[in-house]
Amino acid sequence: MSELISNFLAGQWQTGNGAGTALIDPVLGTELVRVDATGLDLAAGFAFARNQGGAALRALSYRERAAMLGAAVKVLQANRDAYYEMATANSGTVKNDSAVDIDGAVFTLGHYAKLGDSLGDRHFMLDGEAARLGKDPLFQSQHVMVPTRGVALFINAFNFPAWGLWEKAAPALLSGVPVIVKPATATAWLTQRMVKDVVDAGIFPSGALSVICGSSAGLMDALQPFDVVSFTGSAETAGVIRSHPAVAQRFVRVNIEADSVNSALLLPDAVPGSDAFDLLVKEVAREMTVKSGQKCTAIRRVFVPEACYDAAAQAIAARLSKTTVGNPRNESVRMGALVNRAQLDSVRAGLDYLKQQAQTLHDGATHALVDADPAIACCIGPTLLGVRHADGADRVHNTEVFGPVATLLPYRDAAHALALVRRGQGSLVASVYGADPASLGATALELADSHGRVHVISPDVGQLHTGHGNVMPQSLHGGPGRAGGGEELGGLRALGFYHRRSAVQASTTVLASLSA
Amino acid sequence: MSELISNFLAGQWQTGNGAGTALIDPVLGTELVRVDATGLDLAAGFAFARNQGGAALRALSYRERAAMLGAAVKVLQANRDAYYEMATANSGTVKNDSAVDIDGAVFTLGHYAKLGDSLGDRHFMLDGEAARLGKDPLFQSQHVMVPTRGVALFINAFNFPAWGLWEKAAPALLSGVPVIVKPATATAWLTQRMVKDVVDAGIFPSGALSVICGSSAGLMDALQPFDVVSFTGSAETAGVIRSHPAVAQRFVRVNIEADSVNSALLLPDAVPGSDAFDLLVKEVAREMTVKSGQKCTAIRRVFVPEACYDAAAQAIAARLSKTTVGNPRNESVRMGALVNRAQLDSVRAGLDYLKQQAQTLHDGATHALVDADPAIACCIGPTLLGVRHADGADRVHNTEVFGPVATLLPYRDAAHALALVRRGQGSLVASVYGADPASLGATALELADSHGRVHVISPDVGQLHTGHGNVMPQSLHGGPGRAGGGEELGGLRALGFYHRRSAVQASTTVLASLSA
Repeated sequence: MSELISNFLAGQWQTGNGAGTALIDPVLGTELVRVDATGLDLAAGFAFARNQGGAALRALSYRERAAMLGAAVKVLQANRDAYYEMATANSGTVKNDSAVDIDGAVFTLGHYAKLGDSLGDRHFMLDGEAARLGKDPLFQSQHVMVPTRGVALFINAFNFPAWGLWEKAAPALLSGVPVIVKPATATAWLTQRMVKDVVDAGIFPSGALSVICGSSAGLMDALQPFDVVSFTGSAETAGVIRSHPAVAQRFVRVNIEADSVNSALLLPDAVPGSDAFDLLVKEVAREMTVKSGQKCTAIRRVFVPEACYDAAAQAIAARLSKTTVGNPRNESVRMGALVNRAQLDSVRAGLDYLKQQAQTLHDGATHALVDADPAIACCIGPTLLGVRHADGADRVHNTEVFGPVATLLPYRDAAHALALVRRGQGSLVASVYGADPASLGATALELADSHGRVHVISPDVGQLHTGHGNVMPQSLHGGPGRAGGGEELGGLRALGFYHRRSAVQASTTVLASLSA
Repeated sequence: MSELISNFLAGQWQTGNGAGTALIDPVLGTELVRVDATGLDLAAGFAFARNQGGAALRALSYRERAAMLGAAVKVLQANRDAYYEMATANSGTVKNDSAVDIDGAVFTLGHYAKLGDSLGDRHFMLDGEAARLGKDPLFQSQHVMVPTRGVALFINAFNFPAWGLWEKAAPALLSGVPVIVKPATATAWLTQRMVKDVVDAGIFPSGALSVICGSSAGLMDALQPFDVVSFTGSAETAGVIRSHPAVAQRFVRVNIEADSVNSALLLPDAVPGSDAFDLLVKEVAREMTVKSGQKCTAIRRVFVPEACYDAAAQAIAARLSKTTVGNPRNESVRMGALVNRAQLDSVRAGLDYLKQQAQTLHDGATHALVDADPAIACCIGPTLLGVRHADGADRVHNTEVFGPVATLLPYRDAAHALALVRRGQGSLVASVYGADPASLGATALELADSHGRVHVISPDVGQLHTGHGNVMPQSLHGGPGRAGGGEELGGLRALGFYHRRSAVQASTTVLASLSA
């Protein structure tokens, strides 16, 4: 049996007392490590984080906590090679895809270290200016933001064991709120190792950072009114979390990132061979294959003018056909594995489901695997589907197949395109391709209420845009409706979730003492 | 049988087809009107508001919508006398208490008319500055706020039929989001009349403002992903709303204001007879009796230094004993009725419950009713309870008795006081009384994470502060934990709930077109 890795809770490394669940190499099928959280005293662990970790963090200023984030960046950078090896083994990702997770994590953490330093030696934030409460200017209202006195519980997804930890932990720790992360079991290894490296380096106060690997049983029950919970995963589990008494009755604040059927939209004036057309084709093929399409931000629906449909189908298929799929240890391979057998089965089932309304424009099954045994490796080539009658394809608009799968859909005119995009019922991101700044801007605004991010690609930024699916710490990550309604990142906006806003109504003499 | 008042939905006045529920004068026991929503086509009505009302509102600029709020103010002012009569009859409130609701509503609406005008001729808001996404400054991220394309459903409480409508409707309508209000049945009459007056004046586009009086059955089912729901009421109903599939599975955004066991805190250095002591006594007596204590912001727990306990008990009791209780039509009466028999029974039961842990310092039952029949009128005098051992009184910290009831509790030192206040598990408001600006400021910050508002009363603002329980539109209204975790008002902050934030990542050429 493989090593049973430990949980870190109540300031101590603790192994579960169950048999554990094995983490598997999705390419080779070998067992890597085991995780288990059976028998942990969650109530005591959460109380330790809440009381000891929280008090110690709040005693520090934003600048001091930012310096800790900076120190954590250095620790993670020093161990980068080990993380890449773990990602290859556990996530089955090629180097470029591991980078999205690992280097993305370090970049995001570093970004918050810098932002936090700019907040200075304060222990709370002023929110706006003071406002008069009457004709006499002596009595005014000043809003403040103070850290919540609870823990931040993260229930994370398998696809970003590194970034998923730090993009949430950075703003939480910077805010002065202790973190308890429960990584998805399938890839918990990398999350656990990163926490271990940072804990071993003694950067944060005891109780500030905990990790629980294994079942999530009992975690929600341990939450109290001033705690917060941030969940990334399926809409189904999100529904369970939202209905849990901790949220529904104890009013624990919750942030959800769930399913998202993201769109790419080529504006009506584009023609095949134009810069905008070529940029769309390139981005769609890239998004479908990065991390084998296992990104919640990946393009799932591609909308093009009717006249561009055939040309787009051919151009995207041509790009996809060049994608080599298989063992990420082979340098000729550009796309590795799905995370495990369950995901492979789920993607295949999803493809079958969509194919009842769509035709296959490029079949991933035609890709021979490089250096990998098809009976063992959880690899699958990229598949482009197409639907000529976009209005009727409700499955395409409603279904997130979490793999290298997208569907091409033609539209009649701009209004039709917007209506089709909106059938996603709220998504994380839409990208828009065109050449006219005014049309691009107007379309972005039309999509803004149903998308947490609108990524606009015009020819002038064709080489330097940051990618449809890449989540930048400067920008909001989250989306309304089906996407869960959450808000993460967006620079300092992320700190709002971990703070409580309060209006202090007082004499200006008292308010002056707050600004000191 | 009394008049069956109509609902306004889908741009039409519609009466329910059931027998209706009678609204009763809580002092005289007479039937006033009946309400009923049986048989309304909610799906069609919500769709009408969402599509017709929403589109028409969004076609207007903030300034144009603000002008409509201003026009509504004039209509309400013109009908003010009628509203006061309805409040007296249906809420049983004295004139000063009716003013808190009616004039508070008009003031708040007017405040948003002014704020909205300052937003100008735009149709969306920029959120912060654009931020670079790389070394090249050409590609940047600009956050925007755009109105959500759904309806705002308000499920409101009985105690503020006027203010409860407009403090929510003003920011929603200003944001471009159509409103459907479901007032509490007991006092739905005034809400319905105000909507009717504004609808009859033809101020807002068709579908912008709807009112449904009667049962709330089916309302939550009618919500779709881009709708929002704002609820004010009991924690129990709040739990049902949070668990409803609309919220838990369709991710409808929700704002909750639930129970709150608010505090007043006299700082340790105060002595009986000091300005701070006197200000606390006055404010506690006022808060207990305004609207017969039926304010979610009313003081429920009064914390004083141990040495001040007896003096505070005597001083508050002395003030309360002067409160004349009874028929609000009699000019000598200072405190009218509770809203109905159910509330009177609930307050009496709550008193019995608390009295098992508390002694009675002033007994409301000793107040003879003026001009009112005790067998009919839902009147009850103010009761001050007291507990010498504050740590053991869990009922006092956990129970909101929604009437003229508060409990006096002594504390040992500042840390003890803060710990006791926090046992409310999150409240709407705490007020702090003292003379030292630094101590007051530091205490306000200590209370900020567990209170949406901290009201600081020092002698310099003794005559001009706006009151512990008065909700000013400039300041946040809402509280964490037990108070529901919601945020209302706070000036333009209120618009956030009705907008969606989105990050537009684009060439600066495209972003420039947004600012035009």
